[in-house]
Amino acid sequence: MKKFVNDPANFVPEFMKGVMLANPDLLEAVPEFQMIKRKDRPVADKVSIVQGSGSGHEPAHVMAVGPGMLDGACQGPVFAAPPVDACYETIKALASDAGVLVLVNNYQGDRMAWDMACEMAEAEGIKVKQFLINDDVAVKDSLYTVGRRGVAGNFFVIKACGAAAAAGKSLDEVLAVAEKVNNNVRTMGVALTSCIPPAKGTPIFEIGDDEMEVGIGIHGEPGRERTKITSADEITKTLFDAVQVDLPFESGDKVALMINGLGGTPISELYLLYGKAHELAEEHGLTVARNYVGEYCTSLEMAGCSLTMLKLDDELADLLAAPAEVAIRTF
Amino acid sequence: MKKFVNDPANFVPEFMKGVMLANPDLLEAVPEFQMIKRKDRPVADKVSIVQGSGSGHEPAHVMAVGPGMLDGACQGPVFAAPPVDACYETIKALASDAGVLVLVNNYQGDRMAWDMACEMAEAEGIKVKQFLINDDVAVKDSLYTVGRRGVAGNFFVIKACGAAAAAGKSLDEVLAVAEKVNNNVRTMGVALTSCIPPAKGTPIFEIGDDEMEVGIGIHGEPGRERTKITSADEITKTLFDAVQVDLPFESGDKVALMINGLGGTPISELYLLYGKAHELAEEHGLTVARNYVGEYCTSLEMAGCSLTMLKLDDELADLLAAPAEVAIRTF
Repeated sequence: MKKFVNDPANFVPEFMKGVMLANPDLLEAVPEFQMIKRKDRPVADKVSIVQGSGSGHEPAHVMAVGPGMLDGACQGPVFAAPPVDACYETIKALASDAGVLVLVNNYQGDRMAWDMACEMAEAEGIKVKQFLINDDVAVKDSLYTVGRRGVAGNFFVIKACGAAAAAGKSLDEVLAVAEKVNNNVRTMGVALTSCIPPAKGTPIFEIGDDEMEVGIGIHGEPGRERTKITSADEITKTLFDAVQVDLPFESGDKVALMINGLGGTPISELYLLYGKAHELAEEHGLTVARNYVGEYCTSLEMAGCSLTMLKLDDELADLLAAPAEVAIRTF
Repeated sequence: MKKFVNDPANFVPEFMKGVMLANPDLLEAVPEFQMIKRKDRPVADKVSIVQGSGSGHEPAHVMAVGPGMLDGACQGPVFAAPPVDACYETIKALASDAGVLVLVNNYQGDRMAWDMACEMAEAEGIKVKQFLINDDVAVKDSLYTVGRRGVAGNFFVIKACGAAAAAGKSLDEVLAVAEKVNNNVRTMGVALTSCIPPAKGTPIFEIGDDEMEVGIGIHGEPGRERTKITSADEITKTLFDAVQVDLPFESGDKVALMINGLGGTPISELYLLYGKAHELAEEHGLTVARNYVGEYCTSLEMAGCSLTMLKLDDELADLLAAPAEVAIRTF
């Protein structure tokens, strides 16, 4: 297994230890629940934004904790939901008078855990609401979901809700922001290789040297079809067309455009894809008001990418432009 | 070949097109010379910092152009120096009364190109100086160098010189900053897999499923030894010890600590390595004043990492803390 690991059973706590050592001023950890939270949250009059899901999608979820982003997050094992008690403790640790908004990506395991955790928190008088993210247009239902999967669009929901919460919006107002983003964001991905979950030690699926999986899920779930690898431009067009037609995004729309790397694809290839995606957007009469190129929601070291578009109005454009800070910094 | 490419011959101009479309306000391109420069440079009273080397190491070099970083850079083909005329035109495009500092990573091809370009520029009356970066402790001479190679330590030279230039320092003063950083920075890397240069289409070297190359070069050049893959902690200790003993870094030193991904290693693994590196630094009595985890100098999609330490004094700590902006943004 060509990975940097010690005992695969400790992979998640060990990478979380690194995140903590790199961010001693900003973050605090609750190792028992694989939880990381902002040191300066909760505060009574601000809505807390929390999340928690399987590991292997970094920087989602604990690496997205910080001012203007998540207030706290808990990690499950690689590709498995966090336990109910970790979800419950995360809500409790961030509970404020203004309330807690839980952003759940649509996977059955995560939904079950957060449903129960929210019930438990409500029974204790904590003000909490949940919101389900399902931006992946690839498939209607999937291996681990009823309905569409939540993927890289999650970043935009976090960013917009984090900015709204920082601005002092109420729980219902922040929830309305989440709904607006989710209603206007669409994603589809493609994989060139499988990833290797550390505890498994072997690829999660087989794929030929000349093949790609179009519409891949971020846990290696099947997508729309297995085809021969085509050119970067053709791949970008396949992803763009699937996303564009789904909302649909129409001439005159202002959009945020994201090329997200799935973990093993270098930034040079992501910018090459971005160039084509930007041109396709302009050919459709869309204005790219903001762009995002890098890793936002990954699948360990999978070679692949996803394309996300979010239709912007003035409110969303302002929320995306608001300052934010996370555990991962370049400078 | 499991990559996002169109015609391999167009790989570099196509990813540069993406960088430009993503940064229309900050940057301007001179496609003829595969050059990208700040729109607002040169200015007469500010030293310009320029660089140019082979592609395949992104975000180095054109993706490191921006305020407080490089003022301009040109790209050669993947793993090959840029042509002399591109280097010359880059100097010329950024020439200012205060002068131009060329930061050259130590590879024979780059040195030849920049030596000639600097001579040509000087003959035209342009004030220009060169500085050679050679932070890689792995080997004394190598496949493409006489002397040590320049690798991820390059980031720190750019960052510190960029900040000094932005603060209005003279060419000699900025050159002195480059010397101070290079004298105090050390790096060593390890590779788990080879990369595949697009034009070659096959791995640049062979390596067994249970092997790693300790002291790898960023073009796949051999390092110190080929060994069986060990645990992440043992690998980190191997890199740390090689770097620590070389300067040496000693108890009481304040350092910047970087774990750099070589392109195909996910951020979770990089943070896992960072956690151990941070602990080793503390065990040696070092204070980690700044940390850097991510991709700074890569080798296409190679799975691997490097560890860099820079010994800080107050001047360098302030220069690293100064604001900067590059083509790659997360938000």
